[in-house]
Amino acid sequence: MNLIETLRAQIRRNCHNPFYLRKLKEAGLKPDDIKTLEDFERIPFMTRAELYEILSNDYGSFMRDDVVRMNLSPSPLGLIPILNTKRDIEAMNRANARAFERAGVTKDDVVMITFGYHIFIAGLMFHGGFEELGAKTIPLGPGSTAQAMEVAEKLKPTVLVANPSFALKLAKEGLEGIRVLIAAGEPFSSVRGYKEKVRRAFGDDITLVDYYGMAECTPVACECKHETGLHVTTDFCYVEVIDPETGERVGEGERGEIVVTHLNKDAMPLQRYRTGDLGILESVECLCGMSLTMPTGVFGRTDEMYKVKGVKIYPSQIPFVLKSFPGLTGKFRLEIDKTDKGTDWLKVVVEGQGDAEQIKARLREALLVTPEVEVVEKLDKEGVEDRRY
Amino acid sequence: MNLIETLRAQIRRNCHNPFYLRKLKEAGLKPDDIKTLEDFERIPFMTRAELYEILSNDYGSFMRDDVVRMNLSPSPLGLIPILNTKRDIEAMNRANARAFERAGVTKDDVVMITFGYHIFIAGLMFHGGFEELGAKTIPLGPGSTAQAMEVAEKLKPTVLVANPSFALKLAKEGLEGIRVLIAAGEPFSSVRGYKEKVRRAFGDDITLVDYYGMAECTPVACECKHETGLHVTTDFCYVEVIDPETGERVGEGERGEIVVTHLNKDAMPLQRYRTGDLGILESVECLCGMSLTMPTGVFGRTDEMYKVKGVKIYPSQIPFVLKSFPGLTGKFRLEIDKTDKGTDWLKVVVEGQGDAEQIKARLREALLVTPEVEVVEKLDKEGVEDRRY
Repeated sequence: MNLIETLRAQIRRNCHNPFYLRKLKEAGLKPDDIKTLEDFERIPFMTRAELYEILSNDYGSFMRDDVVRMNLSPSPLGLIPILNTKRDIEAMNRANARAFERAGVTKDDVVMITFGYHIFIAGLMFHGGFEELGAKTIPLGPGSTAQAMEVAEKLKPTVLVANPSFALKLAKEGLEGIRVLIAAGEPFSSVRGYKEKVRRAFGDDITLVDYYGMAECTPVACECKHETGLHVTTDFCYVEVIDPETGERVGEGERGEIVVTHLNKDAMPLQRYRTGDLGILESVECLCGMSLTMPTGVFGRTDEMYKVKGVKIYPSQIPFVLKSFPGLTGKFRLEIDKTDKGTDWLKVVVEGQGDAEQIKARLREALLVTPEVEVVEKLDKEGVEDRRY
Repeated sequence: MNLIETLRAQIRRNCHNPFYLRKLKEAGLKPDDIKTLEDFERIPFMTRAELYEILSNDYGSFMRDDVVRMNLSPSPLGLIPILNTKRDIEAMNRANARAFERAGVTKDDVVMITFGYHIFIAGLMFHGGFEELGAKTIPLGPGSTAQAMEVAEKLKPTVLVANPSFALKLAKEGLEGIRVLIAAGEPFSSVRGYKEKVRRAFGDDITLVDYYGMAECTPVACECKHETGLHVTTDFCYVEVIDPETGERVGEGERGEIVVTHLNKDAMPLQRYRTGDLGILESVECLCGMSLTMPTGVFGRTDEMYKVKGVKIYPSQIPFVLKSFPGLTGKFRLEIDKTDKGTDWLKVVVEGQGDAEQIKARLREALLVTPEVEVVEKLDKEGVEDRRY
């Protein structure tokens, strides 16, 4: 099946559920009308708030007879139940296994997973993928550095799955022999200079893999061993990037909100699901054969957006930029105002030590607008101040 | 295949490993010599210390190319790596699923598991069995009562997997709707009156299932919904009870050390493995069709043993008895001496409030010897004092 046939088949299955049926009806569509990606893009989005609402009341219409795993996802609204059938788990494990294989992991590797396996089960999801691949998988879970070092000493892992900051900590404790790091849960490739720092700590030969997934859909995208960006797992989900204001698809290489659709899911399938995560899609020619790629993973949230000089500014991008300047504390204030001539004016006040010109250059790259930059020793007030209105 | 054929086939596979081959050679046996259970009983035991020794050095000879899961088991010697292939995990999941099914769990149940999933992975083992059965399984993990209640409120579990003491705590917090409790990790059916207490807390209709397994072999035995004792999972492992002193099989209904042999295991198979756990085997006619049964599960350790009047006394049995007297603190001193006439003399001094005659009667049942009993308000010294020699 090609992509549109796969999508249409999934939408047809989804329509057995009143929620998805209503979505289609709102747009005056029937599943068979979905013949092109343009048709697909007429389907209204679904949101985390909708998921929460449906699932709050006795799992709503999303519960099925064949669900076997119910974990939870934290959200600002409260805990959202996540439902999977056995077939869903198998598909997720296969998709993860293929992604880890592209990252260079083999069945001879000993994989140590330092994410949690309970309630919010990132660790359990990773674990299933590695066992599916046939790798020797250690369910370490989160815990103390000392415990991780004791287990590593005993079992000699060659692949580490961790927050990049925890990986760095283990490297400083003397962890050796790691061939591949699968990093998740924190900004990694989206922070300039972070990979170089981790590579220095572990040694030049290490493969550093950034991973993007969420409780509702794991995986979404993962780097391969060539480190050319996070390849979308196109065998598992369909990813769009949209303008969060208009809902229109943005062009290749343009910033926008990541929207995810499951390609073959039984329980709780995402269908044009607005993740609220900020990303870019582009086509690369990678040696691994994958092409649809998020060059730097996720680099902010779309929850707040300001228009400055006609350009969309996402303040949540700024911490990703500041993190790559070791002298800065990460605290900042964003000031937006109008000049006497009525044009928009943008200033970022940052705390710590750093070269204002360098910071300005990096912020311009990220925000696509040139701000004024002021570096202060102590910032009295953080946040965004829009004084234009 | 009948039992002896199954055992012989496993021993034949085990002999590819030098450790098991040596075990057989020590007894002058070849796999094909194992034609009866009497032949099987000539195979030397293996111990936890041996497991630890072999696995301490780069997993020793137990590592295989197809191992996919490496967790750890705590032991007085240190952490012991536990190795499983994909086929091993599937077999374990099937055996657990069948046991849970006999306990009355169905695919319509919502199962909340409160054991840990990391490193020492009891929770993960249970989880695999329930997903295999098709039940809706919540990987809650251990944590606060408040968190468990919040998740229970949201997901409405009907089956709880927990330490019996944690289950009681949740019942006191108001947890409702539990149909089946699978209890593990603590003495349960081996403590007289404990089941009645839990039943009062949850309601008369609850099925209370005691479960016995260990990191090296899960499950070993589990109660069915008729609550006639823990049925050995005879499709998964072969269980013997031996005299820990002589190594000879004891009779039906007699106390001794539980010895476990895997029936079909790839990695790290147990072969006449001395668990150090004290148990009894007997045949029951249960409505579920299972017969080989541990009537009260495990009720002590065989690590320390004293002979009094020719009877083997296991001091580790005493806490199980004392726990059923709410007025006692559980602290005790065991005094062994000789009378003037040269016969053995036994006394148990216990701390707290309680009727010495009742305590004496229960201790006699458990120890098979009649002790003197003294109840004191405050015990100055605990432990065992053998003053005979």
